[in-house]
Amino acid sequence: MKLSQVGEFRLIDLLARQLGKPSRGVVVGIGDDAAAIQVKSQKSKVKTNVSFLLITTDTLVENIHFKLRKASFYDLGYKALAVNVSDVAAMGGVPTYALVTVGANKNLSVKKVQDLYRGISRAARKFRVEVIGGDTVQSPKELIVSITLLGEVEKKHLLTRSKAKVGDVILVTGEFGGPAAVKYDSRKQKVERRTQEARIIAKSRMATSMIDSSDGLVRSVLEICKASKVGARIRLDSVPVAKKAVLEQALYGGEEYELVFTTSLTRAAELKAAIEKKTRTKVAILGEIVAKNKGIKLVDEQGRDSALKKSGYEHFK
Amino acid sequence: MKLSQVGEFRLIDLLARQLGKPSRGVVVGIGDDAAAIQVKSQKSKVKTNVSFLLITTDTLVENIHFKLRKASFYDLGYKALAVNVSDVAAMGGVPTYALVTVGANKNLSVKKVQDLYRGISRAARKFRVEVIGGDTVQSPKELIVSITLLGEVEKKHLLTRSKAKVGDVILVTGEFGGPAAVKYDSRKQKVERRTQEARIIAKSRMATSMIDSSDGLVRSVLEICKASKVGARIRLDSVPVAKKAVLEQALYGGEEYELVFTTSLTRAAELKAAIEKKTRTKVAILGEIVAKNKGIKLVDEQGRDSALKKSGYEHFK
Repeated sequence: MKLSQVGEFRLIDLLARQLGKPSRGVVVGIGDDAAAIQVKSQKSKVKTNVSFLLITTDTLVENIHFKLRKASFYDLGYKALAVNVSDVAAMGGVPTYALVTVGANKNLSVKKVQDLYRGISRAARKFRVEVIGGDTVQSPKELIVSITLLGEVEKKHLLTRSKAKVGDVILVTGEFGGPAAVKYDSRKQKVERRTQEARIIAKSRMATSMIDSSDGLVRSVLEICKASKVGARIRLDSVPVAKKAVLEQALYGGEEYELVFTTSLTRAAELKAAIEKKTRTKVAILGEIVAKNKGIKLVDEQGRDSALKKSGYEHFK
Repeated sequence: MKLSQVGEFRLIDLLARQLGKPSRGVVVGIGDDAAAIQVKSQKSKVKTNVSFLLITTDTLVENIHFKLRKASFYDLGYKALAVNVSDVAAMGGVPTYALVTVGANKNLSVKKVQDLYRGISRAARKFRVEVIGGDTVQSPKELIVSITLLGEVEKKHLLTRSKAKVGDVILVTGEFGGPAAVKYDSRKQKVERRTQEARIIAKSRMATSMIDSSDGLVRSVLEICKASKVGARIRLDSVPVAKKAVLEQALYGGEEYELVFTTSLTRAAELKAAIEKKTRTKVAILGEIVAKNKGIKLVDEQGRDSALKKSGYEHFK
């Protein structure tokens, strides 16, 4: 069977099974925005003594994730770091150190690679990340930018995908469908804009789960449901659809880098208000977590279930 | 200017300068086998309380670092992890956790990707490494395997490239030129074989610097000299040339994954004997560290200096 026939998400499941269960020191293993391991920082950015080391990696490949005609090297560098920052933020943590790997054709100009690193440096300064290493390799054709980001999070602030409870409310920041509605332009993307909101959500200790919506709204809810072994009802009239976008794009578009998170029914209004007051970012109540056997459903204004497309943005397909 | 005109080593220098000086929490930054940062393990594989977190990354790109005609997916996976293990070992440390990124064409078979992961898993078991995350992305053509490896090392056992002293002796494990002399065949490579030796050298606390010789013997000595701001004399009649290889291949071949390290003149014999007794691996005394202004020289049997080729194995060139 070809990769295109199984898709990225099933492939990851297959590979994770092959690799076996995580050991005791691994707090969060394969299948979340970042892995979390038990390591204590000596010179910590976070306040408490008990913290976890977060580690995540994201790779951008030319002609798959970006086209050089449309993105400057500077913007590409900025984005490559920012998508990783978004993953660390979605765990409730703060980023610390990065490793940068660039694969480039030998005929590429040094100036362009330096532009790429200027973009990475700019993002690094903004998010207080330090680049401490990496690798530069030759690539026959496509440009590859792969970044591994370390971060840390206090034990009590760690947020995963796996703790959503039946009866919880699903909330989302911002709007969806924007990137799908406009032609791809990395300059207009703000993949990092929810780091502050993520930290507020983590510190509130009210949320039960969180994910960043890089792969689309429905896919994000699916991932929370899969990890938490629950079902969900998404109310279509509650989906915050971006200007110029249609509902379909908001549900399946991806690349928004908004936050999708859950909290108990009794705390939802308080958490929503706290975020909106501190950041002026709109928070919408999207739906509810239900029992696993009820599945994941889209519910229209009349309360009728409607069909769910299986995938959001998926690689290999 | 093109990348091919500056080469990998000057490019790394340029980029490192662009990124600025490392902060206080960074014990070893860009330009060593791995970066080292001040983080303390709670569940530690090493005995002392004061340890550093090591982190390194290596990327293998099809048709640059390997050809699929000649290497099985299993062997490739094994090697991809093992080269990183070699980097952590060269810092004196032990590996702990890995992130695996695979970029593959969507028409690649799932079975082949699983073979790749079987190879990674085999190496992971052997070196007691746990794979805790990664990324799977689509690649238009070439297969890409990128691994980031974490490790740890006691503060007192950390070995870098930068502490070689004038008057020190240069030692090497094993033989050189083998990979350059035979046609590339990943099955015959044992990139990990010096992890035990590296740990013995680190624990002896006799060595002043260490590097793994992935980029060739001369390049390894050059890197130690650059980082330590010293010069070196390499005695040509002391170079351990592998069977079937010639001196030129031993000096500039690369891919041996042997250890190149330095120690004081008074301890060289003791350290050499300790390694050889515990591991049965031959250790050769290659030459001496001299003042920087004396440069890096190859010295023949009659004591005459000879010319030094500028680079070992270098990407982009």
